[in-house]
Amino acid sequence: MTAWEDYLTKNQDRFIAELIEFTAIPSVSAKPENIADVRAAADWVAARLTAAGAEHAQVYPTAGHPVVCADWLHAGPDAPTILIYGHFDVQPAEPFDLWTSPPFQPEIRDGKLWGRGASDDKGGMLIPILTFESFLKTEGKLPVNVRFFFEGQEEIGSPDLLPFVAAHADLLQADMIFSADGLQWAPGQPQIVEALKGLVSLEITVQGPRGDQHSGMVGGGIANPALALAHILAGLRNEQGLITVEGFYDDVIPLDADSRAALARVPYPDDQLLAETGAPAPWGEPGYSTQERIFARPTLDINGLTSGWQGAGTKTVLPALASAKITCRLVSAQSPEKIFEAIRAHVEKHCPPGVTATVTRNPGRADPFQVPAGHNASSAAAEVLTELYGIAPLRTRVGGSIPVMTTLLDTLGVHAVMFGFSHGDENLHAPNEFFRLDEFRRGQTAYGKLFERLAK
Amino acid sequence: MTAWEDYLTKNQDRFIAELIEFTAIPSVSAKPENIADVRAAADWVAARLTAAGAEHAQVYPTAGHPVVCADWLHAGPDAPTILIYGHFDVQPAEPFDLWTSPPFQPEIRDGKLWGRGASDDKGGMLIPILTFESFLKTEGKLPVNVRFFFEGQEEIGSPDLLPFVAAHADLLQADMIFSADGLQWAPGQPQIVEALKGLVSLEITVQGPRGDQHSGMVGGGIANPALALAHILAGLRNEQGLITVEGFYDDVIPLDADSRAALARVPYPDDQLLAETGAPAPWGEPGYSTQERIFARPTLDINGLTSGWQGAGTKTVLPALASAKITCRLVSAQSPEKIFEAIRAHVEKHCPPGVTATVTRNPGRADPFQVPAGHNASSAAAEVLTELYGIAPLRTRVGGSIPVMTTLLDTLGVHAVMFGFSHGDENLHAPNEFFRLDEFRRGQTAYGKLFERLAK
Repeated sequence: MTAWEDYLTKNQDRFIAELIEFTAIPSVSAKPENIADVRAAADWVAARLTAAGAEHAQVYPTAGHPVVCADWLHAGPDAPTILIYGHFDVQPAEPFDLWTSPPFQPEIRDGKLWGRGASDDKGGMLIPILTFESFLKTEGKLPVNVRFFFEGQEEIGSPDLLPFVAAHADLLQADMIFSADGLQWAPGQPQIVEALKGLVSLEITVQGPRGDQHSGMVGGGIANPALALAHILAGLRNEQGLITVEGFYDDVIPLDADSRAALARVPYPDDQLLAETGAPAPWGEPGYSTQERIFARPTLDINGLTSGWQGAGTKTVLPALASAKITCRLVSAQSPEKIFEAIRAHVEKHCPPGVTATVTRNPGRADPFQVPAGHNASSAAAEVLTELYGIAPLRTRVGGSIPVMTTLLDTLGVHAVMFGFSHGDENLHAPNEFFRLDEFRRGQTAYGKLFERLAK
Repeated sequence: MTAWEDYLTKNQDRFIAELIEFTAIPSVSAKPENIADVRAAADWVAARLTAAGAEHAQVYPTAGHPVVCADWLHAGPDAPTILIYGHFDVQPAEPFDLWTSPPFQPEIRDGKLWGRGASDDKGGMLIPILTFESFLKTEGKLPVNVRFFFEGQEEIGSPDLLPFVAAHADLLQADMIFSADGLQWAPGQPQIVEALKGLVSLEITVQGPRGDQHSGMVGGGIANPALALAHILAGLRNEQGLITVEGFYDDVIPLDADSRAALARVPYPDDQLLAETGAPAPWGEPGYSTQERIFARPTLDINGLTSGWQGAGTKTVLPALASAKITCRLVSAQSPEKIFEAIRAHVEKHCPPGVTATVTRNPGRADPFQVPAGHNASSAAAEVLTELYGIAPLRTRVGGSIPVMTTLLDTLGVHAVMFGFSHGDENLHAPNEFFRLDEFRRGQTAYGKLFERLAK
């Protein structure tokens, strides 16, 4: 056993105590009454970084919650520089009465630490700090240059992060980026996330008459905007799931055989999808497996519909307005702006007679994010995971969007690799969040082996 | 001038004073605090009928607001018996501050009586009582047998009327029925309403997953119920307005040349429809004029849409449920039950994959009502109107439904004829309701001439 690993083992009780102390801070970024707690968590992180031996540990203000940066850049000119990302804010803990133990009084049971943020992302972001310390305390140095970049507003969508990154690119320059906010597929089954989907959000509003009309007095004489909206929506995506917006798939790079084989290995059987969602059957774009559709093909989903009378019973109204909220998840080279324009043009071209339709953007955008094949940092991470778990990581993709990954790519020009040790079953945004302490320990070794591997 | 007409002229000031007294009673059937006022109006009507010379004038209780019946059956065995319908309840008057004079302190301005219910239907139902009195006070008899049937719950949909009519059919037996609750087309332009549309109300609910899902986690994998609903709705009626439900038009009797010619004479230009509604263009079932579509062809209108997120901005949800409220206006021999079944079967047959759809009925039903061609009572009414106005009545139809017309037809086997003297511009359900006093007077003569005409 290496000295740094021995250090990790010997100090594990202290590290767990520190994670308990960190998790006890109610750093809920969504709630104004916790602003000081988010700041206290930032201070805790900066102090812990300094204690670990990091330099320039500092809390940086933003227009909202703060950011913490630190570095150690003494590995020598030939060693790569890595940036490690994570976040110290947490989701709200409500409803409190569903928690077995109080969310901000973390408690160990069954080898797990229970508390809000234990898994997302306080356990995750503490891991690389501890590994970093173990190298400095035993070897006096690290094989790579390290920068730390921790934020306090991930759970509210990081509204102030892009301007911070743009203004402080010098603090964040790195050859590779690793996100300590991430999941393994399942206990015992690691994964490398190769892609995240992008996002565009929009709303279609159809106007018929200027106000709601009596359906008996004018029905049959003028168009019904709710029916017109139904025709528009039905024209965007067919019953089988193919998106029929002209040009929608133009910038989608076809899945190659290697990607399809990798996705086929992801154990997400239809039975599990149906059990988890209660949907009566899988559904989606013809010609692709469920895994391919969820993880690697673009989507168009209606998020909401509104028109006319929504109370109980009958109101014989011919509504003035009907609207639909829509989000598209994007892949490959699809651009939110281009897809919005394609939908806008499609709706304009196919608007049924007797109404007017307008398409507007709603908040929320993200470019698709895909790690290039043969990406060095991903390969290194995969090798480390294979060694530690004794099994090759699944090559997965995520149907959701993580805007910070795109922000880092756009601003720093570096594809981040997710290298975290949480799991999807750990109630990340629900009551009774927990973090597996054996994965907390395994993650520390993983980061150490990653540092060594990257230095080669 | 006949004696009865002379009597009407001489007593007109008293009649107007009586209409003011009647209109001052706040008999709002929708409001629990006005229950006693509705009863007071019933008592006023019964007393007024007795004073006019009617026999057996009595207030009958129902499960809700009362009914008033009376009769005079001494015209002899060869004379026909007519039933006159009207209602003494009124719409709520809110918002009070939009009234120029208080709604229950009726006031004469510009030859009109302003007050809630003056037009709908207190002025209308008082007219035949006054004419009835004028015959008895001058000639000691009427040329026809007369029954009166006035209700106190028309403005809330007459929920207790069908059981009353069924239980008291003996009080209501008649050869012809005239409704004193009705409109002329415009001042100076009479109309005969030949048909009213029926109604069926239903709701389509589409279920996808059991609860709302994250559109990034499962989008592309399972069907979106809002999209499926859009496909279902688009399949019920095409963009041009043709209803595509299998069997929907089966029981619609084609418009004959005579009916089309009559509807073509109804002066309802598209410009007026668009100005009144603000719709950008007329729209509807191909092959029919706007008048034909509004007045004489069946419709299918979406009254409301509900699904998923309806607040501001974006919520990336794949909803569990999507629903649409629908009403169809029916004509000819269409049955609400059969049309409901046709839509239910259509939705069941065409439900897109990956969701389940259910179709349920909502409250509200009416059979279509159409006066048969050559109907005696209609012909008599038309002749009287032609004589009084110096212009033939338009033969119109109404896109809305008046369930009491169907109730009387179903229970008594008689088609009612609308013979009222209000107008659509008299703010019937709005602030500043008024009734034209010249039409109040003309209506009295019209009922007298009708009595005489029916005795021939």
